[in-house]
Amino acid sequence: MSDNKGPITEVTVPGKVATRRRFLRDSAIAAAVAGTIAACRKAEGAAGVVAATGHEHGTVPNASPAPALSPREKADAMDKMHESVMKAFPAKTVGKGNQLLAPRLENGVKVFELTAREIQWEVAPGQHVAAMAYNDQVPGPMIRVREGDRVRILLKNELTESTAIHFHGLETPNEVDGVPFITQPPVKPGETHSYEFVVPNPGSHMYHSHHNSTKQVGLGLLGAFIVEPKRPRRIEKVDREYLFILNDGVHGYTFNGKSFPATEPLVAKLGEKIRIRYMNEGMMIHPMHLHGLHMTVIDKDGWPQPQPWKCDTLNVAPGERWDVIINCDRPGTWAFHCHILPHAESDHGMFGMVTALVVQA
Amino acid sequence: MSDNKGPITEVTVPGKVATRRRFLRDSAIAAAVAGTIAACRKAEGAAGVVAATGHEHGTVPNASPAPALSPREKADAMDKMHESVMKAFPAKTVGKGNQLLAPRLENGVKVFELTAREIQWEVAPGQHVAAMAYNDQVPGPMIRVREGDRVRILLKNELTESTAIHFHGLETPNEVDGVPFITQPPVKPGETHSYEFVVPNPGSHMYHSHHNSTKQVGLGLLGAFIVEPKRPRRIEKVDREYLFILNDGVHGYTFNGKSFPATEPLVAKLGEKIRIRYMNEGMMIHPMHLHGLHMTVIDKDGWPQPQPWKCDTLNVAPGERWDVIINCDRPGTWAFHCHILPHAESDHGMFGMVTALVVQA
Amino acid sequence: MSDNKGPITEVTVPGKVATRRRFLRDSAIAAAVAGTIAACRKAEGAAGVVAATGHEHGTVPNASPAPALSPREKADAMDKMHESVMKAFPAKTVGKGNQLLAPRLENGVKVFELTAREIQWEVAPGQHVAAMAYNDQVPGPMIRVREGDRVRILLKNELTESTAIHFHGLETPNEVDGVPFITQPPVKPGETHSYEFVVPNPGSHMYHSHHNSTKQVGLGLLGAFIVEPKRPRRIEKVDREYLFILNDGVHGYTFNGKSFPATEPLVAKLGEKIRIRYMNEGMMIHPMHLHGLHMTVIDKDGWPQPQPWKCDTLNVAPGERWDVIINCDRPGTWAFHCHILPHAESDHGMFGMVTALVVQA
Repeated sequence: MSDNKGPITEVTVPGKVATRRRFLRDSAIAAAVAGTIAACRKAEGAAGVVAATGHEHGTVPNASPAPALSPREKADAMDKMHESVMKAFPAKTVGKGNQLLAPRLENGVKVFELTAREIQWEVAPGQHVAAMAYNDQVPGPMIRVREGDRVRILLKNELTESTAIHFHGLETPNEVDGVPFITQPPVKPGETHSYEFVVPNPGSHMYHSHHNSTKQVGLGLLGAFIVEPKRPRRIEKVDREYLFILNDGVHGYTFNGKSFPATEPLVAKLGEKIRIRYMNEGMMIHPMHLHGLHMTVIDKDGWPQPQPWKCDTLNVAPGERWDVIINCDRPGTWAFHCHILPHAESDHGMFGMVTALVVQA
Repeated sequence: MSDNKGPITEVTVPGKVATRRRFLRDSAIAAAVAGTIAACRKAEGAAGVVAATGHEHGTVPNASPAPALSPREKADAMDKMHESVMKAFPAKTVGKGNQLLAPRLENGVKVFELTAREIQWEVAPGQHVAAMAYNDQVPGPMIRVREGDRVRILLKNELTESTAIHFHGLETPNEVDGVPFITQPPVKPGETHSYEFVVPNPGSHMYHSHHNSTKQVGLGLLGAFIVEPKRPRRIEKVDREYLFILNDGVHGYTFNGKSFPATEPLVAKLGEKIRIRYMNEGMMIHPMHLHGLHMTVIDKDGWPQPQPWKCDTLNVAPGERWDVIINCDRPGTWAFHCHILPHAESDHGMFGMVTALVVQA
Repeated sequence: MSDNKGPITEVTVPGKVATRRRFLRDSAIAAAVAGTIAACRKAEGAAGVVAATGHEHGTVPNASPAPALSPREKADAMDKMHESVMKAFPAKTVGKGNQLLAPRLENGVKVFELTAREIQWEVAPGQHVAAMAYNDQVPGPMIRVREGDRVRILLKNELTESTAIHFHGLETPNEVDGVPFITQPPVKPGETHSYEFVVPNPGSHMYHSHHNSTKQVGLGLLGAFIVEPKRPRRIEKVDREYLFILNDGVHGYTFNGKSFPATEPLVAKLGEKIRIRYMNEGMMIHPMHLHGLHMTVIDKDGWPQPQPWKCDTLNVAPGERWDVIINCDRPGTWAFHCHILPHAESDHGMFGMVTALVVQA
């Protein structure tokens, strides 16, 4: 599958992708993160002795049955666990969600194909979970279209149970709303169902299963459906875009289907302006906290707020989408995490809903 | 008790009720919902063979000890459960909350009588729970008055424990604030207590027990207290009003005291403008998601927001009230539910915090 | 340690403190609260027979193995428990958090010393819990400085594990951001670490551990970091300030480290304008509900909202800070609590996240 060296689900803005992505992949992330971490290591290089244990809950690396540890040795042992997780960031895992899905054009209609099936998904290094996925991705591939486009989404069901897709936030005609027994029959295993409509209201929307949804969405049948406006507002003109799909089900606490240290850092150059689209597909609130920089909230569920407003901690509830702008005017590696601390850190170090925004000087 | 064919707690706007309610009862709901559902049934009429099993958690309709099912048969069995629940909507149950309480007039004072007592309450077909109720309703009867009215609420306590009423959101004089041992003694079993005041700030407020309240409110001692403003704003002029009292205690996940499929649909004619008043009397947030249409948020806790703003998913926290306007400009049966999916759907189909907004062409 | 007769963490506004605090301590609280409660006691003085049982969960005061109680006797027994808790408010406990920390001046730098160590903390009368504290306070001492001040925070680690401080909400240089292995090595037991910076953005901010933080913050390593603006807005000119640090970990549901009845009342004179700064250092939302008066929300995370807006129930999520103004224009003792009722009341009476705003006529 795809590598995961790219930045966290950087949104592919047509025409700008290749250059930017290459830049990031080649130069930025690993170096930036590694550099920052190296700079804060202790002089004696204690980090060097830490075994690369990965991120296993329930086992204590370096725990030995032998002589009892002094308090300082215990503190050191804990710190080494924490450091080893931090050093592993961004950790390689197999599989990457939110990949831009290229449509094929048929008589002016953009046709997107989504195949739902059961897969194994690597949430963090070595941590494989049972998943239901569109096109083998958790989250499913990103659909990105323009207000007024005509689209056809072909859902092929290769699951062993029925399914359906709801386009969450899109004001589609009722017949493509995707709710079995209200707007359509369920799509049986082996069947393909077509949803065709003219793309209505712009903004950060989602698509996800609406059949047996607690299970199916919890296992990964979800993705971003982004609609570019015909007339972007001035405030929307940014240098980069990132996406956070939050989840908290049986896969644990994840950003874009991955748990720290397998989450991807966000990278920007000093002075750049970035946009983040938050989408909560889980069952809990997640107050997203960015260190050192503030966020300017511009949109809720794809609708402009009457006036932009600022914060450093944005509470994102299930089903909500929030768009924010960040002026990356202060360099450094800034921690970025859910502020429900048990979603982000345990005695074994950071995990789950943690990443970093790297602002490169 | 009352039938429950009417729409979900349609707010009784004086002078318009009879006609509108009759219209709705006679023509709209069952037909609209049934019609929509029928339209999406499979041609072979598979729905016909589904036993009317109701909505029983823990038992699998059609489960037989006999030969193992193929994957497709399993999928069909699950779908039939889901369909049978959907077909049952809106399901009849005994008891209806939020009924408008008519006051009697005594020397210009509107006198409302509330009797608290223990009852059995039917949350969903066949699912009876122990409840504490005002006037045998969960939620209690709706009190609807006008800013500046003089009111007297007579609370008769027929429970076996003491109680008291707090008027949540109303800026009453302190002595009628309803907090035992701070503003009054508790109202003992058998006693009647009188709360008299001039109705202050307008908006969507609540009344509920403030004594042993985790238990008493959890069991149903709560209701809506709506205060019409002396000078309604232009944006408040709507064709219909609906009310959602959210709860999540021992009665399960409920809208207005009922769990899907016993919740009531909201009905509107194409082009109408409706107002929804959300009130959370539970212990959890509930992000309310409407399919296909957006909501314009106008009030928080009865106070106008500085500027209306739009969304499709509104996070309602315990104790909060939010008022929204919906322009019903797109026809169809639109699912309407809490987006914490385990509050809305299980392997056995939809349950709990689910209803639909039916926009009739 | 300090007594706790003062009002709930009244913010010490330089130059006004002594007079105001003395007034409050001498005259206001106990008298006001006691007076109000006395006024609502039953004429027969049933309260007099209630044993001072304190607030012990799990034991029923007055429970006797002897003759079964009649329903009325049971109701009376429950009411007596509830009354005894209410009468105990504000209950004395050892230890008081949020005390203003006076810096020493070194060449124009304000130097604050924080020592982290393990202590026992009295959350409610007789209820002692293991805590980690800065300067033996939970929450830690309040740091209050001015935009543009140069500050040095000296963290002395007397814990048995490593730690670090993050200045939550402050836009500091990256190197003092306080995240081990990203911006600094952890501060080992016995070590002292210095954080020095020019105070950036004004507002209601926090400081807390960012190492093993689920445990360390949960146990008390947190405090308020308030930055006064160079140019206060007109709306910020208030008569008094109060602070609510919300928490919900192993110490139970607390305001400023204390559980009702050991929480402190807020006191104001009729006509005064007060400011409340809410900070959530817990793991859950807490919708704060004030009886009888509304709140005008002015700031979120230290940033002004585009326009102030009103409510009576403000949902505060982990990591968030919200500032509100209250015009105390209606006299009485107003209950003030989290509206997740199980955070505020049990069968044994009120506990946890409960206090009162006493507006003195």
